[in-house]
Amino acid sequence: MVVERVKQLAQQVSNTVAPPHPFDPLSSQEIEAAVSIIRAEHGALFYNAVTLLEPPKAQMLSWLADPVHTPLPKRVADLVVITKDGKVIDGHVDLTEKKITKWQETPNVQPLITMEDLRIVEHIVRKDPGVIEQCGLIGIPPEDMHKVYCDPWTIGYDERFGNGVRLQQALMYYRPHIDDSQYTYPLDFCPIYDANQQKIIHIDVPKVRRPISTAPPNNYHVESIEAMGGYRTDLKPINITQPEGVSFKINGRIIEWQNWSIHVGFNYREGLVLNNITFFDKAEDKARPIFYRLSLAEMVVPYGNPEHPHQRKHAFDLGEYGGGYMTNSLSLGCDCKGSIHYMDFEFVNKAGAAQTIKNAICIHEEDAGILFKHTDFRDDSVIVTRGRKLIISHIFTAANYEYCVYWIFHQDGTVQLEVKLTGILNTYAMNPSEDTKGWGTEVYPGVNAHNHQHLFCLRIDPNIDGPNNTVFQVDATRGPGEPGSEENYYGNAFYPKKTKYTNPVEAMADYDGSTSRTWDMANENKLHPYSKKPVSYKLVSRESPPLLPKEGSLVWKRAGFSRHTVHVTKCKSPLVPPWSLLLTRTDSDDQIHPAGRHVPQTSGEPSKGLPQWIAANPQENIANTDVVFWHTFGITHFPAPEDYPVMPAEPMTLLLRPRNFFLRNPVLDVPPSYARTPSQIAAGKSGCNCTDKASVQV
Amino acid sequence: MVVERVKQLAQQVSNTVAPPHPFDPLSSQEIEAAVSIIRAEHGALFYNAVTLLEPPKAQMLSWLADPVHTPLPKRVADLVVITKDGKVIDGHVDLTEKKITKWQETPNVQPLITMEDLRIVEHIVRKDPGVIEQCGLIGIPPEDMHKVYCDPWTIGYDERFGNGVRLQQALMYYRPHIDDSQYTYPLDFCPIYDANQQKIIHIDVPKVRRPISTAPPNNYHVESIEAMGGYRTDLKPINITQPEGVSFKINGRIIEWQNWSIHVGFNYREGLVLNNITFFDKAEDKARPIFYRLSLAEMVVPYGNPEHPHQRKHAFDLGEYGGGYMTNSLSLGCDCKGSIHYMDFEFVNKAGAAQTIKNAICIHEEDAGILFKHTDFRDDSVIVTRGRKLIISHIFTAANYEYCVYWIFHQDGTVQLEVKLTGILNTYAMNPSEDTKGWGTEVYPGVNAHNHQHLFCLRIDPNIDGPNNTVFQVDATRGPGEPGSEENYYGNAFYPKKTKYTNPVEAMADYDGSTSRTWDMANENKLHPYSKKPVSYKLVSRESPPLLPKEGSLVWKRAGFSRHTVHVTKCKSPLVPPWSLLLTRTDSDDQIHPAGRHVPQTSGEPSKGLPQWIAANPQENIANTDVVFWHTFGITHFPAPEDYPVMPAEPMTLLLRPRNFFLRNPVLDVPPSYARTPSQIAAGKSGCNCTDKASVQV
Repeated sequence: MVVERVKQLAQQVSNTVAPPHPFDPLSSQEIEAAVSIIRAEHGALFYNAVTLLEPPKAQMLSWLADPVHTPLPKRVADLVVITKDGKVIDGHVDLTEKKITKWQETPNVQPLITMEDLRIVEHIVRKDPGVIEQCGLIGIPPEDMHKVYCDPWTIGYDERFGNGVRLQQALMYYRPHIDDSQYTYPLDFCPIYDANQQKIIHIDVPKVRRPISTAPPNNYHVESIEAMGGYRTDLKPINITQPEGVSFKINGRIIEWQNWSIHVGFNYREGLVLNNITFFDKAEDKARPIFYRLSLAEMVVPYGNPEHPHQRKHAFDLGEYGGGYMTNSLSLGCDCKGSIHYMDFEFVNKAGAAQTIKNAICIHEEDAGILFKHTDFRDDSVIVTRGRKLIISHIFTAANYEYCVYWIFHQDGTVQLEVKLTGILNTYAMNPSEDTKGWGTEVYPGVNAHNHQHLFCLRIDPNIDGPNNTVFQVDATRGPGEPGSEENYYGNAFYPKKTKYTNPVEAMADYDGSTSRTWDMANENKLHPYSKKPVSYKLVSRESPPLLPKEGSLVWKRAGFSRHTVHVTKCKSPLVPPWSLLLTRTDSDDQIHPAGRHVPQTSGEPSKGLPQWIAANPQENIANTDVVFWHTFGITHFPAPEDYPVMPAEPMTLLLRPRNFFLRNPVLDVPPSYARTPSQIAAGKSGCNCTDKASVQV
Repeated sequence: MVVERVKQLAQQVSNTVAPPHPFDPLSSQEIEAAVSIIRAEHGALFYNAVTLLEPPKAQMLSWLADPVHTPLPKRVADLVVITKDGKVIDGHVDLTEKKITKWQETPNVQPLITMEDLRIVEHIVRKDPGVIEQCGLIGIPPEDMHKVYCDPWTIGYDERFGNGVRLQQALMYYRPHIDDSQYTYPLDFCPIYDANQQKIIHIDVPKVRRPISTAPPNNYHVESIEAMGGYRTDLKPINITQPEGVSFKINGRIIEWQNWSIHVGFNYREGLVLNNITFFDKAEDKARPIFYRLSLAEMVVPYGNPEHPHQRKHAFDLGEYGGGYMTNSLSLGCDCKGSIHYMDFEFVNKAGAAQTIKNAICIHEEDAGILFKHTDFRDDSVIVTRGRKLIISHIFTAANYEYCVYWIFHQDGTVQLEVKLTGILNTYAMNPSEDTKGWGTEVYPGVNAHNHQHLFCLRIDPNIDGPNNTVFQVDATRGPGEPGSEENYYGNAFYPKKTKYTNPVEAMADYDGSTSRTWDMANENKLHPYSKKPVSYKLVSRESPPLLPKEGSLVWKRAGFSRHTVHVTKCKSPLVPPWSLLLTRTDSDDQIHPAGRHVPQTSGEPSKGLPQWIAANPQENIANTDVVFWHTFGITHFPAPEDYPVMPAEPMTLLLRPRNFFLRNPVLDVPPSYARTPSQIAAGKSGCNCTDKASVQV
């Protein structure tokens, strides 16, 4: 995962040739430059994050509009450090001026838990006398403590400890053999770890004890499959090749493909960040802006078992651990298949050195099946055109779970976000014939997999032909008049009812399956010449369950973003001159994290992030102005034995589709696989031949 | 589309070697045998349908359980013929005994409209004086009548004409040039065609006239794209090859692939019919039955414009035209890519001769991305396994629209149904600056595309470890107790609330997005050994809009199946001896078509199909007995200009997923792309290598 320092330095030299794009993540060189500036002034510190501070939106829009005559925005590092005595500092380092421009102690917060923070806990746990005692009570002798494992989780929020001390909860497991899946042997107690003291400060022990399971292991590794009859042998290879190369071009981190242009960013927190997404529209002969920024900004995974201390299981995998930090280094042909372009991810470690995850981002094309087809039933004249898609993806591992994130660009202007869940269920111990009470499923003897939700927060900064946009709720609605009435005699009238959101309170809205509710991000200043409707992008997202923890519950308070399917907030960047104002950072430039900047151990009182921003100005205008659209989606997972010992990938998806945006179908110039017109048929002429020579009939 | 008679006969000879499987569609030889038996007795007739009468379910289950010792069910042709004087006959021909076993005149019904019925109308319309007059009124001179086209639709139901006369409505269009898309030039009037008299009997003329559009053509054919700047040249080929062949085996029409076994049937009406779907479960060392029969059984496309006569636009594309009859002959590499196995479709024409659609069914494999993955954050030990899917598909053209139907089988036991919509919007004329009143969108000058829904009825005959199954409604539900209460202190409790359907009235239920509602088809007689829950398959379907035409409306009455997201009916076949009863055909053996056997011109009074069957015995037991599960899904489509002049494919999908069915994840024996255990890492050993040699880094 981490390459040698020597390679990094060589890389840095080559990176210095051109100045980075203002959206480019910080390079290793920039990270280390920021660290050296801080170190010179403040000495040794623990580094939690050193990441790009994206330039103020107003400034970026100005620069993007005219990069030649507008000064290049400064490179600024946004950082979180922890002092040796546990103080949290939020800071900025101006890398252009080489100086610290912000250095602020933030009390009563805990920055996210890094992989380094996580990895240390297991070693402490194994030596803790209290843990050894508890292990003994459930049947693990002291000499077997090397077989005891723990997945350290953020503690969520535990009112007994508050947020003054940096804590983790250690979900405990056992492995009879080093290669056995520990999730088959969950332990029933839960130590609390203090990261500052590096010791266990408390152990939660249930009233009903559950001795260690005596069930045989339930494994998925190669040796165990071989021992159970071996692998199936009837799967023949499928090869996917692009003999003439890929169809995309990459300039720095800007991808150009099939009229799309996308800047691919990445940070420790959100993972992939896509900026300045435009589509070259031949009809208008220009690149039209669509999204200023797209990212998965947060997520929460509440578990549904009300028994203490399971309420603490509601991980914010992005805000509490970092989707970037947990990102996998991808392997050719394993994670993605075909002709792959990779990008690395560079980040800071605790000591302040730059680290690299090689192949953190996968970029590749796939065939997308039929793009459009029509046959005339009169004469069999036909056109059939195959589609292609571009996929920008990364995969991160959050302890037991894997999240595979695919940003998929379609030729017709659709942006699709697909998330696949795989990995392993979080499990808890149960005694033989113990009642799960409906809060979970016994997926294997002694293994209780609790009900849970995966709720993601998609942050969309729309730029639909410019930043002044309006969000409409669209409900499929029956027309007025009962059957037999003059206005609706046959009772078949229906139409899309559009509700304009004018302030953030109105815009706190939920999915309604009974109206197939969608949302339009529209530019009311530009009407489609034919339909006379505003140019827009529609969010189509059907996997939008409500947050199941109740109003006023711990999760409801901490994960305010998940209370509603959508929220809309205002961007406060000035969009008109004087240009001097453009350099001013506004509140909204930092409204990136909907559960707050520092998520671990927030109490939810008050709720950080979205609820706070909205409460600050609940009646401000959000119509025909610069807005951010927040969308909660996901699934509710009631586990079953076929999800165990490792889950077949479960996909969920949503679409952002152009509506009244293009003059007409924008993919008509994709070469057809086959086309033949009525006049060709009448004249006995053949049509244009299939473009694909590789397919065979079997 | 239709091959020469000679080839057919050659084919028939080879087909006669082995007796057909009882689920096999009738061969050309069988079709012509049935016709000759009828012809001998009844002389010349018009043939509407000659199709397989599937054997009684009880008999088939008995034969499938022990094909060696059970007599092979008879081959019987189910047929619909129309006498020269317009009488409709429903009949059966026993092909084994070579005799007519049913010959019944059915009054007051109209059988579906075949492609032959449709193709004749345009020629009649062009010569009709009333039509010529109406064309003249809107600006088309008599000498241009060859430029006038019509898409003949079933009439739906028009109370002025009832169902005594066989009618079609002619949706009228104009083409300035033979290759121009006619949908850009819709005409404002609508002739009614009498199929028996072969003449126009009425013309519906709107109060407000709309002269023929003068807008330039809006085309998608090759010449027009070339004229507008040509095709894009930046798309490089993607080749998909299987150098060692495909992974499936085909024996007759039974496909075996990755533990699945599926009989692939096909008929004129439903198109693909999948029977006797089983999965070989290694843990139980046997093939376990899952579904007795799966098909898209019906659909309705109601349009939302209440102005007369647009209420007549609510095509039942399967019941009124036949998804099989309208099926495309598929082209290699155009419709499906890779290594393809095709099957043909044989059917009867009006005169009684067998016809063939070559390559009606496409069967192929695709890479399915990551099947499962897990990385241990401690040591980067990892397993990543890629998935594969098997796709059985056909495409049919219903006048303007194309429906692409993909039955997708996954290795993990999931069955996915994906439907892609493409083709062309139904359009109606509008004057410049005319108000669409919200019932449609002006997608091009003078072109009004009306709001509509596509509602499909999926018929599932479950056989989850045997025919006695129960349907449960499953709602994600918050636990009792408010936050702060003893039972739910942190407010996070939630569970899957299961509601057992005990009779068909209870089972008339709607989708509820707020509970992420799903449905389990369960076998209560077999509990999972770990979870103690019944083995089941879960329907996960999020695209389930309600029928928007109101209660009591014409569409509501005619398309009773679409009033609810699900219905459950009872199969009445005896499942226990005496075996003599097995040969008896029960009512439920013929309950295949949820809007009735003959759909055109039904008034909906009473509603045919599902509502009728349920009303016949509303309180009968449907728990732990043989049942059929009916599911309505689809989308509501508010057109936009980017859907025109031809629509980029819009997908919708649903899943049937095993829950508590398999002992554990059934895909653990799929060879991993890469796997490395903790012990291998500790010992410095490499893992198992990636199976894919073809991928490249670019």
